[in-house]
Formats: sequence, structure tokens, C-alpha cells
Amino acid sequence: MQKFIRLYCAQINSTVGDFKNNFEKISYHIYQAKKHSCDIIAFPELAITGYPPEDLILKPAFIQKNYEYLEKIKDISEEIVVVVGFINKEIEVYNSAAILHNKKIVSIYNKQFLPNYSVFDEERYFQQGKKNIVFDLNNIIFGVNICEDIYYSSGPTQLQAILGGAVLIINISASPYHIKKISEREKMLFTRAVDNRVNIFYVNLVGGQDELVFDGTSTLINEKGQILYRAKSFEEDYFIFDLDTQEANMARIQDAKFKNQRDILTNSDKNLEIIKINNKKNKQGKKINFNSNNNFDNLNLKKTSYKFFEIKDLYKQNISSTEEEIFKALVLGTRDFIIKNGFKKIVFGLSGGIDSALVGVISAFAIGPENVTAVLMPSMFSSKESINDSLKLIKNIKINHIIVSIKEIYNSYISNLKDNLDPKNINYINITKENLQARIRGNILMALSNEYNWLVLATGNKSEISVGYCTLYGDMVGGFSPIKDIYKTMVYRISQFLNIKYKNIIPKEIIKKAPSAELKPNQKDQDKLPPYDILDQILKLYIEEDKDYKEIVSFGFDIKTVLNVIDMVDKSEYKRRQGSPGIKITQKAFGKDRRYPITNCFKLEG
Amino acid sequence: MQKFIRLYCAQINSTVGDFKNNFEKISYHIYQAKKHSCDIIAFPELAITGYPPEDLILKPAFIQKNYEYLEKIKDISEEIVVVVGFINKEIEVYNSAAILHNKKIVSIYNKQFLPNYSVFDEERYFQQGKKNIVFDLNNIIFGVNICEDIYYSSGPTQLQAILGGAVLIINISASPYHIKKISEREKMLFTRAVDNRVNIFYVNLVGGQDELVFDGTSTLINEKGQILYRAKSFEEDYFIFDLDTQEANMARIQDAKFKNQRDILTNSDKNLEIIKINNKKNKQGKKINFNSNNNFDNLNLKKTSYKFFEIKDLYKQNISSTEEEIFKALVLGTRDFIIKNGFKKIVFGLSGGIDSALVGVISAFAIGPENVTAVLMPSMFSSKESINDSLKLIKNIKINHIIVSIKEIYNSYISNLKDNLDPKNINYINITKENLQARIRGNILMALSNEYNWLVLATGNKSEISVGYCTLYGDMVGGFSPIKDIYKTMVYRISQFLNIKYKNIIPKEIIKKAPSAELKPNQKDQDKLPPYDILDQILKLYIEEDKDYKEIVSFGFDIKTVLNVIDMVDKSEYKRRQGSPGIKITQKAFGKDRRYPITNCFKLEG
Repeated sequence: MQKFIRLYCAQINSTVGDFKNNFEKISYHIYQAKKHSCDIIAFPELAITGYPPEDLILKPAFIQKNYEYLEKIKDISEEIVVVVGFINKEIEVYNSAAILHNKKIVSIYNKQFLPNYSVFDEERYFQQGKKNIVFDLNNIIFGVNICEDIYYSSGPTQLQAILGGAVLIINISASPYHIKKISEREKMLFTRAVDNRVNIFYVNLVGGQDELVFDGTSTLINEKGQILYRAKSFEEDYFIFDLDTQEANMARIQDAKFKNQRDILTNSDKNLEIIKINNKKNKQGKKINFNSNNNFDNLNLKKTSYKFFEIKDLYKQNISSTEEEIFKALVLGTRDFIIKNGFKKIVFGLSGGIDSALVGVISAFAIGPENVTAVLMPSMFSSKESINDSLKLIKNIKINHIIVSIKEIYNSYISNLKDNLDPKNINYINITKENLQARIRGNILMALSNEYNWLVLATGNKSEISVGYCTLYGDMVGGFSPIKDIYKTMVYRISQFLNIKYKNIIPKEIIKKAPSAELKPNQKDQDKLPPYDILDQILKLYIEEDKDYKEIVSFGFDIKTVLNVIDMVDKSEYKRRQGSPGIKITQKAFGKDRRYPITNCFKLEG
Repeated sequence: MQKFIRLYCAQINSTVGDFKNNFEKISYHIYQAKKHSCDIIAFPELAITGYPPEDLILKPAFIQKNYEYLEKIKDISEEIVVVVGFINKEIEVYNSAAILHNKKIVSIYNKQFLPNYSVFDEERYFQQGKKNIVFDLNNIIFGVNICEDIYYSSGPTQLQAILGGAVLIINISASPYHIKKISEREKMLFTRAVDNRVNIFYVNLVGGQDELVFDGTSTLINEKGQILYRAKSFEEDYFIFDLDTQEANMARIQDAKFKNQRDILTNSDKNLEIIKINNKKNKQGKKINFNSNNNFDNLNLKKTSYKFFEIKDLYKQNISSTEEEIFKALVLGTRDFIIKNGFKKIVFGLSGGIDSALVGVISAFAIGPENVTAVLMPSMFSSKESINDSLKLIKNIKINHIIVSIKEIYNSYISNLKDNLDPKNINYINITKENLQARIRGNILMALSNEYNWLVLATGNKSEISVGYCTLYGDMVGGFSPIKDIYKTMVYRISQFLNIKYKNIIPKEIIKKAPSAELKPNQKDQDKLPPYDILDQILKLYIEEDKDYKEIVSFGFDIKTVLNVIDMVDKSEYKRRQGSPGIKITQKAFGKDRRYPITNCFKLEG
């Protein structure tokens, strides 16, 4: 005895506010799903508006526009159930899923658990949903819930599966990436499926939006916790799957825990509505299992007018390591920031160091090397090696370059400023003069940006941004900061991964040399900072885990070093506040993930 | 028949994380209150930690430190009831008021309504309180609640007054200022007092914290809605008041509405605990009514070691106009940002225009003219008048100044960059070259900042920041931006107010001249922007009221102008994101008050 339901997963890359383009993607996939006689097609959370729309939600016209497009989607829902995320305005505003069928809104599910921590502000915009519903589609019962909802063991998933009898939970999601998130989420989905003896159809957003990257990795998982299909990570994808829902139903007969749990819920005050949907069918014929790997041409995706984000070589391969996963996140996040903000080309300062080298590689992968320009800006303190190593990298990755010396400009500043500088510093390269060099470089990049409409990418890493080892309006200049959430030690790891995968794409001289800002003679980062392997561990404990200095010292670090690092982190908040956005990669990124006061006198040892 | 209770209002200026200094203020006022036999002393919301501590709350060590200081306060609470705001960690974390007496914690009230809109993120940190309590102090019943709580008609105030029988509500608050907030709040307090036949003792925080200014204006209001005492706005203050609580009790006998409301609450599922406090008394003697105006010396405030923020001349006078109110908010916010961040001196670019002139005046009032340096940075496009007018202002307000020409530096950039600039722009001052001038000035200010540890103040107003009529890393350079939430038309209004009050402190030439960035010959702001009186009205409708273009046009504005303004605002989000913080003055400021995506394709007319 089998009872199949044909599911279509549309893992799309929506753009915030781009209703027209989002709708084109949605309608294209609905067309494909209908053509292949699918029963249900599901799109990510807030697929119509893009996620997160932030304060655009407070604009009545934005919500209105979202309804206009919901209407359009409703009008193409004949003979298929469409589950799509949108903003629902009843008396209050909800983050919702519309369940559409035969040109009607069958029902609306309102998200119940609203994340308001980390990067999330959903309580700012939405009311909690209270209504519990399941759907009976030709005698197969399914439930719908949204992202955060499925993270709760006593949430809507349990209610829909155990009290409502749903054998399938469709969770539409916009779950931002951070290191290890993909595997953690999959473990959670496994547990939720097994606990509730239910199939889970998890449809996640993919793409970059300011500080966030959504990894996709939509997953269909059965009641035993087995992965039936896993969509690609970090690119748009889709699949069609004929799911046998009878297995879950049968498994429940034998599961004492399931029955006990149902007793508890039945005796609670919870209740649940069942909505019937009758879909005229069924020309499905034999069971199919389409996906983008083996059926790409069948679905004719390439032939449509709708623009897919280009799939680069890199994406043809599976993710094999943390470094590769992060690199893909960086490429996707950088590309989407550039393209979705209407830029075609970027420019960045290439110093000869590893950070800017990595940003060069990321950019070349993101938008193609022909659209990338590196600017070399040697000073009197730049080593010959820095120039040569930079030129080697430029050749390897085939990007454009420009050389502008900053010596003369620097001298001109000094001669015009010298009467107003402290005479005792006159023969000495102090912080004023170091920063001045960095700021001249910033100005040059911005001049090129203004002249040619190139987006400037900043090249700072998380270690230096944490401790303020960077110049505001200098090397911090840029509209986007690809590696701002990547610690220096991870910059090395990713570079080494790239060199293995792409035959020493980054010249080994760049990897080997001691890090230096080259702003005065014989300067090295480690003159002022602890070695990066020490620094990065302390930073992780302090920033991501909110440990105090005593706890950090208890891990074996020198107390003076720890206090010094904490002090530098605290004092640099004002710089970070004026830094450009970059991609969240760690558990806790700077930006809306970590909201610190600038005016802050808290000192534990004080 | 009278029943007096002696109240002490301690309207202090706490600093986020500065536990030691906050405690010194708190203990000083407790000492004074005890000396004058007060029954109750109340401090603002989160007085121990400062408000808002933002993500510091996620640090266990921060909460721990807050408890250490709560203990210290408890230990000096003999024979007086102390109501003080702190962070309460039970199983969950609460924004709370500790009610202390005789070296014991009598009880803790947890805030019930957590603002999570506008600049607030309280749902990110705190759980909602559920416990309802009132206190019986020698047969006078009072209730305590916190800030937002009192904004709800069916909130804790009603429950405490009507069901609990409290004749006095103590609301401890950290209510940030915006235009008209003071009078709006007072109307709300009036209504709450009258509706519930209750005295309200409203104790508000004063001081600046990053983007926020708390105005103080603590108020004691009786059950008829009469203001018994109103503390000063925009400075630290305190008062002692003998309140007759019997009036409220008697008024309730005659009030049918009050009794009906009590019936409703009695029949609801609400309940409420009464906690008895017996305070050994009473050497109070005859009725007193101390305050900082008539009893300043009696209280010996000047003689203590504890540092008051200096009270400038300006503060000796009452607020007489919106312009004066705003000016005081700007001075307080600027002063607190400078001082609380450890700076003593500031520097800013003085262009000869009205914006930088106003910033000069604000700075001089905030930290004294001897600590302010104006930098004049003429270019080939600067008019002679700009220099002369600037020097006149400098003389009027007695600040320091420096003159650095940018001509040579500019020429040096152009000669080094020219091979890489678009040849067709070579003889033409395009946006690249305009911005370059602004960025050279930014670099000069930053060099002086680095050299002398002066804080740079940016001088941009809200009109230009809204439409992006400003240069990122140029005139936007600065650690703080005093007038970033002041529209250009309001810049004029405030300047005119100052000129009336302080005998043409701002040279009238500066007020009269047409606004110009002076970045190319004969440039005027109105070449690119609509007249400021039009622009500012459109901006207010779009930014503060979230109106769409059709609604704005319906107010009588030209459709092309409106669409152009909206487009400029939307496109400039990336600049604002990298701008420095400034003081929220309007209903909706940029910063955490308006959280917009940079990547945003929403266009209504699209």
C-alpha cells in the first residue's frame, strides 16, 4: 500500500523588494510544477518580498505591493497547491505562508515563533500566529509552518503531526548561514522527523542579503530521519520528488511514544482545524524523481527568459570541507551584494598581503575576473616583494590592475599640515602618519569608484576589525567587506584550500610572508598584536561566547594579553560602527548580530 | 485629615557600564534622602547599569557586576525605601526595579511591557514580568512600575491603583527625547493619574547615550492631574516633596467609574500581592518642599566629591520654545558623547555655512569654547566670504582655529591619478573631483584627531544625509554627528533662536547666504535639490510617516520632485550606514530607529 504525493521544491534566490523579479521566478517554477503534475510546490519564507525586508514592512505600500503579487500567484494556482511566504496583514501583521489552490486562498498560516535574537528582529514587525491548521489533500494530511517554528519540540510541528495527523510537514524557511549551521540544522530536522514520525519538506531560501547569506540546502527527510533528497547549497536549485506518505502513517501504529504524546495533546486545550483540498488529478503516471542534476534539460530551465544567477565551475562540485563551505558562502554573499545593488564591476586595494589576495579571488569567482580591478598603491614603505607578489596574483586570476603611487600625495599632505602637527613627532612616523597613508589609498579607491561606478570592496579580516588594527576611512573604505567575519587564521586556511584545489592560485610568497601593514619601516602586525593563532582564540571566546577575562585566562592564555585584547575590542566599537557590511560567517558577527553601545565604560577588572 | 509621604526624586545621569560612578551618584542621593528623613527615594530605570546597555546584557559578567552594586545599595537602605532600576536574573532576565528597605530586598518588580519598536530592542534581552505587587508602607499603599508599563491604560498602573488600592504609582523610566515628547508624555501621565485617581511619581533618566538623549523632566502629579513638581529638563536634578496621599483615597469614594472598574478587575483572573513595609519614623517635623532651585545649598550638592556634569548658563533658564528644547537636547547629547567616551576636546571643519556654524556653537556650549578647534580648509572654490564669515563666528564664540589650504594636496592627487581617470572628464569638475576635495578635508581632520586625540564632529544635517548630498569619508567623517537628525529648515530656526537669545552669535551673513558645498564654481545646493522648505516637508512625510509617493503628492507636491527625493533617499542608505551616530531628535531618526536594508529593490512606481 503506497500513497504518493508529488512535491516540487523551489529553492529560489529572492531579492528584497524586487517583487517583479521574485514573481518571475515563482511563476516559472509553478509553470514547471504544473507541467509535471506536481501536487504541491513550496517556496521559501517571504519569497514574495525577499527576506529580511526590515523596516520596509512598516511601509503600508510595501505590504500592499506584496498582496498584489500574491493575487498574481493565486491566479496561476489551478490544479496545484502552492505554499508561498508573504506578509499577511489582518488586524495585525504576520510573517505567513499562503496556501493557494485553484485560484483561491485556501488558508493562511501565521508564523508562531518569532526570532528576536542574533540578527533577527521579527518581534519588531510581526505578531505571533495562534491559529493551528492542517490540510487534507486528497486524503493525505499535511501541515505548514515557517522557519523558527520547527526549532521548537513543542511547537506547531508536533501539534500538526501528532494531534492533526499530518504525515508531511512543509517548513518554508529563510535560515541564514553560519559555520556548521547546515549540519546542525540537519540534525534538528532528523530529530523532529523521528520524534513526530513525520516527513519533513524543508524549503530554504538561497542568496545574499546585506550581512546575511542563506545557504539553501533544502531537504526532504522521511519519518525515519533518512534524507530522501538534499538540494544544493549556495545556489538556486529545485527538485521534484514522489513521496510515499503511507510509511509514516504505518510507523505510528507501532510507536507507543507517539500515542502517549497524542493523549497528552488531546487532553490539552490545543485545538486544530482541518481544511480539505480536493485536487482534480491524476495524470502523473509513473513515479518520478527529477532534480537539477539529472533532469536539468527536461525542465528546460536554461531556455526560459528568467535569469538564473550564473553557475560557476566551483559549484559543480560537492562541498568537501569547512573551508570550501565558507568560500562558497563568501562568493555568493559578495556576488549578490554586488549584483542586487546594481553594480557590474568592483575595485579593491591589493597590498601584497593575504587578505586582499583572498578578496581578489572571491571577487573573480563572484563576478568574473574581467569585472575586477586591483589597485596597487605603493608608498615609501612598500617592499618590492609586495608589488611583485601582487602582480603574480593578478596574472593567476586574470584580473585588471592599476598602479598609483601615494608618495607625492603623502608629501603634499605633510608639507601643508606640518605647521599644525606636534613638533616633537616631526621626524617620526606616528599613528597620524600611518593612518594618513591608509586614508590616501582610501581616497584613491573612492575616486576610481566615483569615476567609473565600480563598487569598492574592503579587505579587512575579523581579527583586525575586532581589535581596531585598521584605519577608519583608510583600509576600511568600501561598500562591502567580504571577509570581515573571517579570522586571520581562517583566511590562511581558506587560502590553502584554494591553493590545493586551484593549483597555487595565490602565490605562496603571499601566504608565507609575515603580515604587515607596511605603514612604517620594518613594521609587522605582531609588533602590536599577539600571534594570530593566540589572538583568534581569545577573540572567539570573548566575542562569540561572551566569556569574561577570567574565564578566558582559565583556558591557558596570558592575563596581560587577554586584558589587552579585550580592551582593544571594546575601544574599537566606534570604528566598526562606520565599517561597511560584510557576510556573517561565524556564530556572532559584527553588525546587527552584536549590538554594542559605543559609549560603554564597562570594565570587569575596573 | 492628611497622610504625608516624603518622596525624593533622584534624576541622575547614569553612564552605560560605569557601575562605580553610577553607584557614587546613587549613594550620594540616598545619603541626602536619609538626612532629610525621606520615606522613599527613586532612581531611573536601569540606573545601576545605565540605559540601554544593549548586548552587554548578554555578558554574564555584566549582570554579575550589576548585582554586586545592587548589594552595595541594599546595604545603605536603612530606614528608607529605595526604588532602583537593575537587571534581574531569575530563570530568565528581566528589566526590573528593586524595592530595598533596611538592608533587605523587600521585593522585585519586573517590567511587563517591553518596547521592541523604534530604537528599542527590549524583547531581545528581557522576559515579560508577570508578578503583580503593591507595597503597604506604614499604611500608605504604593505601586512600582517601569517606563513603558505606564503607557498602557490596562497595564500595571490600573491594576496597582484600582485593584491593589495604591494611592501612589512610582514609575521609573528611561524615556528618550524627541520633539514634543515632553508635552506628549505629560498628557499621558495626566490621563493615567486622573483615570486611576492616583498620584504618579515619574522619575526619568537624564543624559546622552550614543544616539539617544534622555530629557529627565521627572514629574510628580496628583490624582487630579495637577503637576505638583516638575524637575528640570536636560540636566541632572532632584527634589524632595511631602505628598498628601489622602486626597486620592478620598476622591475614589465619589468616583463611580473607579468603582465600576474595580468590579471588573475584581471579577477578572488578575491577582495581586500586598507586601508590608514598616519604616521606623518619624523625625520629619514640619512639611518640606525642597528642590534644586531653592535648596541647592542646603543639600550641599556642590561640596561632595561626586562630579556633577557642569551646569552651563543656558540651563539656568526655562525652556521657552521648541528650538530651545532641541538646542538643549543637542548640547546635552553632544557633551555626554564627548565626555563619556573619554574625550576632552573636539575638532570640526568650519566651512562658512550654517551647519558647521551651528555645530561650533553647540560644541562651545557643550564643553567650553577653549576645548573646541575649528579647521578652515579653503580650496580654489572657496569664496573669500566663507573665510571671513568663519573668522567672525570664531571670534564671537571664542573657539580656537587652524587654517589648512587643500589646493596643493588636491593638485597632487589629480596629477597622480590623471592617467587613470576618464579622459573625457579631464577639464571638468565632476563628482569624482568634488568628492576628492571633501575627502581631503576629512583626512586633515582625522590627522589632527590622531595627532592630538581630539574627537572629530561631523557637521551634516538631516536633509543632506537623507538625500545623500554629502561625501562618504569626506564631510561625513567624524565620531559624532550632532545635527544629523536636524532638517536644514530647523538648522535655520535654531540659529535664529540663538541669535535672538545671544545677540547675533552666528554672523547674519552666514544665515543669509545661499547654501553651497563650494566644491565647484558657482555651485548652490539648490542646483541639485528642491528648495529646503519643500525638501524637508517631503522628507518628513516619507521618512517619519512612511507615506508613499502618491500620498505625498496629494499634499500638493510636484510628482517629479517627490519621486526624485524618494529615489535619492533610498539610494543613500549605504552612506548612512557608514555615518557616525548622532542625536535622535525627530519622530524617526536614522540609525537603530530606522532599520533599512541596503540591498533593496522596492520601488512603488516600478
